[in-house]
Amino acid sequence: MRFYFDYISPYAYLAWRQLPALAAAHGEPIEPVPILFGAVLGAHGTRGPAEVPAKRTYLIHDVARKAKLAGIPFALPPAHPFNPLAALRATWVPMPDSDRTRLIDALFKATWETGTGIEGPAALSQVAFSAGLDGAALAQASGEVPAKDALRNATEAAIADGIFGVPTMAVGPEQFWGVDALPALAAFLADRQPVDAALVKRWASLPATARRI
Amino acid sequence: MRFYFDYISPYAYLAWRQLPALAAAHGEPIEPVPILFGAVLGAHGTRGPAEVPAKRTYLIHDVARKAKLAGIPFALPPAHPFNPLAALRATWVPMPDSDRTRLIDALFKATWETGTGIEGPAALSQVAFSAGLDGAALAQASGEVPAKDALRNATEAAIADGIFGVPTMAVGPEQFWGVDALPALAAFLADRQPVDAALVKRWASLPATARRI
Repeated sequence: MRFYFDYISPYAYLAWRQLPALAAAHGEPIEPVPILFGAVLGAHGTRGPAEVPAKRTYLIHDVARKAKLAGIPFALPPAHPFNPLAALRATWVPMPDSDRTRLIDALFKATWETGTGIEGPAALSQVAFSAGLDGAALAQASGEVPAKDALRNATEAAIADGIFGVPTMAVGPEQFWGVDALPALAAFLADRQPVDAALVKRWASLPATARRI
Repeated sequence: MRFYFDYISPYAYLAWRQLPALAAAHGEPIEPVPILFGAVLGAHGTRGPAEVPAKRTYLIHDVARKAKLAGIPFALPPAHPFNPLAALRATWVPMPDSDRTRLIDALFKATWETGTGIEGPAALSQVAFSAGLDGAALAQASGEVPAKDALRNATEAAIADGIFGVPTMAVGPEQFWGVDALPALAAFLADRQPVDAALVKRWASLPATARRI
């Protein structure tokens, strides 16, 4: 399955921590797809949950409760929102899959578990080094054209595929948005039953008898 | 607990169907608070999940999957969005609690289970009648000042309390947004442990080192 994510999202962190067990239970490999959440929001003309004041206040309660329920350690990064670009681009630098998994683990951990942060070349380099990778080389490569292009292309492709938030887990055309969708994802991996196409079609053509604006 | 809802939301329907068992397990009464979701969105300058094209497409998949997982029958109303005002106002008309519960049940059922719809005085009256209530009197009262004021006042009070979506379940100051928050609500009713106040405070004062706009 594809795992669309941005380090800026604490929900992506909660999903990343629960996904390996879920994927392993169904023999489904995880293909990480780092994307820039801010660009996704911009494309759909929406705001993220941390950008609407009342939702931002709620978010911390929701995340803390869900971390506790799932037994996942949780801390705050030094700043939020922060600039995740270098970390996202570094994750696109060519490397063996197992190295990439360790890098993503370490970047999520530094953001939302220990809260030391991942912003800036020094932090990025140190986090990658802690994952057993060449931090200096990764920080360098994250500023170069191939990594920038890879992130931009992945983000644009995700938007074109209708992705509007992170985390989103996708199996073929089936999308599961948010850590709250993990139970439905697990059910789908077990029975591979897509949602009734007739229902989807009827919903798409339902008339509107009221408008807000 | 207070249950803030609008019939227009399929997630409110899914929550309403699961709430009685959850509430009974913890000896917690349910106080229904009908509010106008459109006004809530307007107050926060946000759009609902059915108002962003990519989210609207996703919504039907998400709702159908969650209904299936929870074993809740699900159908589409004749139109969406529709005007829920008369139904919401009718729910505010003074009546015994048990009658109100039956009315809410019947209105949610006609919207999202049988899909016959609740828009317009005739539909409203018929749905109320099917719940054993005086449909004609309720439809009449839903157009009068006290019911209009009750809905407006409840919606404004909800907005002032930071409610930004439906369904929201609230126990004292603790809010739980969305049908996805039911597990966290159940955990809270069991242990009454609020989220760490120091974490909430730190989140509120976290610096921003990036801005989207």
